[in-house]
Amino acid sequence: MFYILKLGGKRLRPALTLLSSELFGGTYSRAMDAAMAVEYFHNFSLIHDDIMDEAPLRRGKTTVHKKWDLNTGILSGDAMLIESYRFLEVYPPEVFRELTRVFSETAVQVCEGQQYDMDFETRDDVTVPEYLRMIEYKTAVLVGAAVKMGAITAGASEGDQQKIYDFGLNLGIAFQLQDDYLDAFGDPKKFGKQVGGDIIENKKTYLYLKALELGDDSQGRELKDLFSIQPKKADKKIDRVKEIYSQTGATADTKKAISDYTARAFSCLKALDLPEEKKEILMDFGKDLMGRKV
Amino acid sequence: MFYILKLGGKRLRPALTLLSSELFGGTYSRAMDAAMAVEYFHNFSLIHDDIMDEAPLRRGKTTVHKKWDLNTGILSGDAMLIESYRFLEVYPPEVFRELTRVFSETAVQVCEGQQYDMDFETRDDVTVPEYLRMIEYKTAVLVGAAVKMGAITAGASEGDQQKIYDFGLNLGIAFQLQDDYLDAFGDPKKFGKQVGGDIIENKKTYLYLKALELGDDSQGRELKDLFSIQPKKADKKIDRVKEIYSQTGATADTKKAISDYTARAFSCLKALDLPEEKKEILMDFGKDLMGRKV
Repeated sequence: MFYILKLGGKRLRPALTLLSSELFGGTYSRAMDAAMAVEYFHNFSLIHDDIMDEAPLRRGKTTVHKKWDLNTGILSGDAMLIESYRFLEVYPPEVFRELTRVFSETAVQVCEGQQYDMDFETRDDVTVPEYLRMIEYKTAVLVGAAVKMGAITAGASEGDQQKIYDFGLNLGIAFQLQDDYLDAFGDPKKFGKQVGGDIIENKKTYLYLKALELGDDSQGRELKDLFSIQPKKADKKIDRVKEIYSQTGATADTKKAISDYTARAFSCLKALDLPEEKKEILMDFGKDLMGRKV
Repeated sequence: MFYILKLGGKRLRPALTLLSSELFGGTYSRAMDAAMAVEYFHNFSLIHDDIMDEAPLRRGKTTVHKKWDLNTGILSGDAMLIESYRFLEVYPPEVFRELTRVFSETAVQVCEGQQYDMDFETRDDVTVPEYLRMIEYKTAVLVGAAVKMGAITAGASEGDQQKIYDFGLNLGIAFQLQDDYLDAFGDPKKFGKQVGGDIIENKKTYLYLKALELGDDSQGRELKDLFSIQPKKADKKIDRVKEIYSQTGATADTKKAISDYTARAFSCLKALDLPEEKKEILMDFGKDLMGRKV
């Protein structure tokens, strides 16, 4: 548990819980345990996902099940999931139940998202709407829950909770789409991982599915062929796939989707009846996130 | 999730939650969701334990990770753990927080117990007190939590909650020791599993550890030698190990420990200031459990 927590990461979700709490007039300190619950949950899901995806590396370091073993990965993940619930125990009963309800509902959705993601590996008829639902469940709902939980600790109204949740949800989708985009088109000098990693692993990202949707028959066939091989030297494959992404319009569409979801997130934020300067902070945070190169 | 639930089992824990609730003047229906939480949690732990123990069978049927695969086992277990928390959401906020606190504290202990159990496989210096702590965490605390949660749904006082918890804890230890005993000395016609299974697998049970503690040097050496081999035809090994268990006094000591822990459980029940006829039902349940051959 402490090993994976110490690997760092962006700590985006707990930061959002704290910022959301401040937005609604709460304090960092009162929101801290909710933020911890969210970050513990996220790390639980990383440990178990890394087992399921047989991933050797996480944040550039050895994954838990590789550093120790399968059993340690399963059990420390389980303990981390339980510990995430325990952070919420400090809140007054009414708040505790409200937080726990959001948390559990989200947690089950994250598991469903992971199941979709695994199902997609062996399916060749995945559609763009299905993919969007997958990233919504696997990634975005937890970003939504993170800000909603911050709002709950600050005593925000139900209407405001919904608006900030929608902000987080849309930001989460934009964030994941941008992950897909950067994986192919990121700057190798700035991007932390190997650029083209998704292409090497034949991962059905938004770019890939959109290229199949928008491309003509011959582009589709070529793309599917390229995604059926794993050449040792992948440079040519990566270059050709990126060419197809751009020729079919998938690259431009992905950029547009990222900016659309970001705009939708910001309009949820704008709809809140709160001082502009308070919303500014979350807006800037969102803009920074969307301008990221990593 | 539904597959493992449909395999049945004794459903001892949820039954105890319901009985405990009735003992304190509650109703079956009000305690039902707490009982469901306990049974879901128990089944989550079985799915993940079976992966960690590489067990092919559970309740005579294929285990989840064997029937499907590792990933399905991990993910359905995770979802079941989360769903177990969700059952508690129906309770009023104060009760909800109380139940969830007991539940989470217990859940972490069960994970710790599983870790001890795995550690013991590769250790040859496990002591009887360590073994007792392991079964307390892995098995007994959940029996304690099951009855305590029933008591909480019925509005029992904190003092009464503690007494009924201690009843469950001691009954749980007695139950697990009896499991060890029946595995070696059960009636093959009545015992559901293969008699001698623990001996075949060189499992360090209470019988084994007690025999090492009570036996002389030559008995200890012979027992350790027998537990270093896995002969194809195990009959002779099983017979000889059982002889040593009896000659060293480990068999008698195990029987005594079972009856001591059961007596301790019953004295916790007796200490409750409640009508005798109400306690009678739980007493009979405990007696039935301890008289079981399966």
